[in-house]
Amino acid sequence: MADCQGDGEGASSPVELYEKLTAQGEQVRTLKTAKASKADIDAAVQLLLKLKINYKQMTGQDYKAGCPPSENSVAPENGPAAGGADDEDTVDPWNVSTNNAKGVDYDKLILRFGSSKIDKELVDRIEKVSGQKAHHFLRRGIFFSHRDMHQVLDAYEKQKSFYLYTGRGPSSEAMHVGHLIPFIFTKWLQDVFDIPLVIQLTDDEKYLWKDLSLEDCHRFAVENTKDIIACGFDVNKTFIFSDLEYMGASPEFYRNVVKIQKHVTFNQVKGIFGFTDSDCIGKISFPAIQAAPSFSNSFPQIFNGRKDVQCLIPCAIDQDPYFRMTRDVAPRIGYPKPALLHSTFFPALQGAQTKMSASDANSSIFLTDTPKQIKNKVNKHAFSGGKDTVEEHRKYGGNPDVDVAFMYLTFFLEDDEQLEKIRQDYASGALLTGELKKLLIDTLQPIIEQHQQRRKEVTEENVKQFMTPRPLNFN
Amino acid sequence: MADCQGDGEGASSPVELYEKLTAQGEQVRTLKTAKASKADIDAAVQLLLKLKINYKQMTGQDYKAGCPPSENSVAPENGPAAGGADDEDTVDPWNVSTNNAKGVDYDKLILRFGSSKIDKELVDRIEKVSGQKAHHFLRRGIFFSHRDMHQVLDAYEKQKSFYLYTGRGPSSEAMHVGHLIPFIFTKWLQDVFDIPLVIQLTDDEKYLWKDLSLEDCHRFAVENTKDIIACGFDVNKTFIFSDLEYMGASPEFYRNVVKIQKHVTFNQVKGIFGFTDSDCIGKISFPAIQAAPSFSNSFPQIFNGRKDVQCLIPCAIDQDPYFRMTRDVAPRIGYPKPALLHSTFFPALQGAQTKMSASDANSSIFLTDTPKQIKNKVNKHAFSGGKDTVEEHRKYGGNPDVDVAFMYLTFFLEDDEQLEKIRQDYASGALLTGELKKLLIDTLQPIIEQHQQRRKEVTEENVKQFMTPRPLNFN
Repeated sequence: MADCQGDGEGASSPVELYEKLTAQGEQVRTLKTAKASKADIDAAVQLLLKLKINYKQMTGQDYKAGCPPSENSVAPENGPAAGGADDEDTVDPWNVSTNNAKGVDYDKLILRFGSSKIDKELVDRIEKVSGQKAHHFLRRGIFFSHRDMHQVLDAYEKQKSFYLYTGRGPSSEAMHVGHLIPFIFTKWLQDVFDIPLVIQLTDDEKYLWKDLSLEDCHRFAVENTKDIIACGFDVNKTFIFSDLEYMGASPEFYRNVVKIQKHVTFNQVKGIFGFTDSDCIGKISFPAIQAAPSFSNSFPQIFNGRKDVQCLIPCAIDQDPYFRMTRDVAPRIGYPKPALLHSTFFPALQGAQTKMSASDANSSIFLTDTPKQIKNKVNKHAFSGGKDTVEEHRKYGGNPDVDVAFMYLTFFLEDDEQLEKIRQDYASGALLTGELKKLLIDTLQPIIEQHQQRRKEVTEENVKQFMTPRPLNFN
Repeated sequence: MADCQGDGEGASSPVELYEKLTAQGEQVRTLKTAKASKADIDAAVQLLLKLKINYKQMTGQDYKAGCPPSENSVAPENGPAAGGADDEDTVDPWNVSTNNAKGVDYDKLILRFGSSKIDKELVDRIEKVSGQKAHHFLRRGIFFSHRDMHQVLDAYEKQKSFYLYTGRGPSSEAMHVGHLIPFIFTKWLQDVFDIPLVIQLTDDEKYLWKDLSLEDCHRFAVENTKDIIACGFDVNKTFIFSDLEYMGASPEFYRNVVKIQKHVTFNQVKGIFGFTDSDCIGKISFPAIQAAPSFSNSFPQIFNGRKDVQCLIPCAIDQDPYFRMTRDVAPRIGYPKPALLHSTFFPALQGAQTKMSASDANSSIFLTDTPKQIKNKVNKHAFSGGKDTVEEHRKYGGNPDVDVAFMYLTFFLEDDEQLEKIRQDYASGALLTGELKKLLIDTLQPIIEQHQQRRKEVTEENVKQFMTPRPLNFN
């Protein structure tokens, strides 16, 4: 996976974006002249529109052919512009950005991506079918969007089981708390539905995108696997694999990759992912490798060659483009479409509109941080929704919606009542920023400590066990 | 491999070509506007020039932007046009065509591809180093071009050994005599140099390019393997593999594929292979898969992880684009460039300027043909360089240079003196077309019969042995 929590690469400059737009405009004309297929033209037009939106967002001006931007064009800092589409957030596997301190507008994203909201009815239904209280990530809208989840539950009620697939892009040894979100939730799903799980580590992708050696990417995959195992997955129901290993260990996996690659054109990946002619051919064909685990016959050792076992993918919403592509291809190669559960992004300490970065130790809490580091980072770097002085804060109250300490508590504090009380007290001014931060520190320190303890107990033998293709419990 | 003997796909119509050219022209402008890298612009310009040459060849007119060809444009039938480049042959992995009855102009191809001619000095040197009389394919210029063969021999003289790599695109069960050429020659090289050999069956490529199922392509790979084994390869020195199998059996192979894919852009494969934005991403990334066997660490079971063993690739010249790309990438990923020996194309029965086609049973002699079928095909379909009447033939003589029966004899009749006498007698008119054809029939029938006999003796167990990754004799 490209990082599920959006450690994206940098955005283009206005001039770069202008040139991209010009090239894309010519591309659209070229395709029309050459009477290309409707699908190809549509894909190119879609990319053009997306670039135009990004351009307006970046420069505050509409794109005009022949009128390059001045070198200093920038968008007005906070202004939700007059138009409609121009305050749109950027969300793709390599870029997540928004101008809103509350973070990405997820309702708009649902409309744009064409997914469905996880509403109360669905949460209730998950509780009913699983027989368990819904995870707080569901209750609190952290997993907020889905595709075909009702269909998964319909089948499950008729004793037709499914499997889970999630992943991680191992770009460094360092994982932060945000990286745990999909794994914590996936473990819960595995437990309540009693189903097998496959976890893909896209070390090949990280090699293709980053200035890293194959050996390092693979080493990161193995190190990250230890953190994933420490989340408590059941070894009898979980297969963790590195692409660099599993591709060379499973002809069935490669067969599905080739099948997908035959049914997706460059025009399509250009439209979906924004690839250009200067991208390496490895990037261009990679989406098929992230798509392949969505099909059960990629894992013959687990599903005995069956190709009809439904897949459910819990992931951050920035990964959806991969699976839109996968769902488009699936029926054309005779496979069921994977269903999805999408999470919001885990905010950086500096606020929900900035990005977390594995290279900036202060942008998040890492799984290797000491209790003291956690305390210092939260106190020093967590963006506060409080007022400037104690007096003002007491009088007007703080804003929990933009307060990162409060946001983190919604992820990690399980008690709903306690969380609601904190929200009210902070909003009323009864709770000061320092006190709120202390609550977060007290919540995070034991979670990280326990994670570190469990990770320490993960042996090389455990890693080997999880990463060996083998039968899993599956009914 | 794309078929080594050029069963290519059909060429475009003038209108299609005109539209491709228009699109490519816009592409070049786009890249220049966008200040793309020099390499990318050069690649696009190269493709543009190639398309212009093809256009002139097809329509007899220069390409002019804004002036589409009339629907009936065609080049003058035989006329070597007035210009310079316009009588150029088309040679790439999917298209081989020429207007010349003698076949492709190979000297020009050497200039265009930037390879070196196999001259008498090199043939003598191969004899000296190997201690064996040169194979008649070398003596007669059937293998006519090379890259770095002197370097291979230099190293061999210093006890630095090398390995051979060749391949086949298994697009059907039916192989024809032309398909044997690279294998016959490769076997000779294996024998005289006593070196290991890897043979790649690109069943994945055939799936990507043709309207065939994965299962059929893989089945063809196994069937073709039996014909290849029947050529007499030494099982202790030969590894035959299908991509669909070996990719899933060797992490080292996939690692090299990804390394290559990281170092080649879409612009580059567009320039080299003429891919377009409407091509599937599988085609676009495939060249890396044909490139990977050029590096010895793709076969750890044979070379014990060594990445510095020199590779020598005997193949038909239409495969050279793959290996130009490979040689460009090699130093950038720390591997030696593969050396090459290029063969001419095996002509179709209908003449050297037409294409053989596995779907046209009359275009060649198949390895499954009965003695009677061979006789009938040669008598009925082999294009003759003889005169219209016996009287004229006796008086003016025949033309062996365009006579397909004579061409086939240069491939299959080993005795140089006898061949030369046939040439002279045919040219003088002493030998009639029917007599020449009978000589070919008498030569081919036992060769095909013996091949069929050896193929019948190939067991499933033999196939399994050859296709199992394992140590080979290697000094």
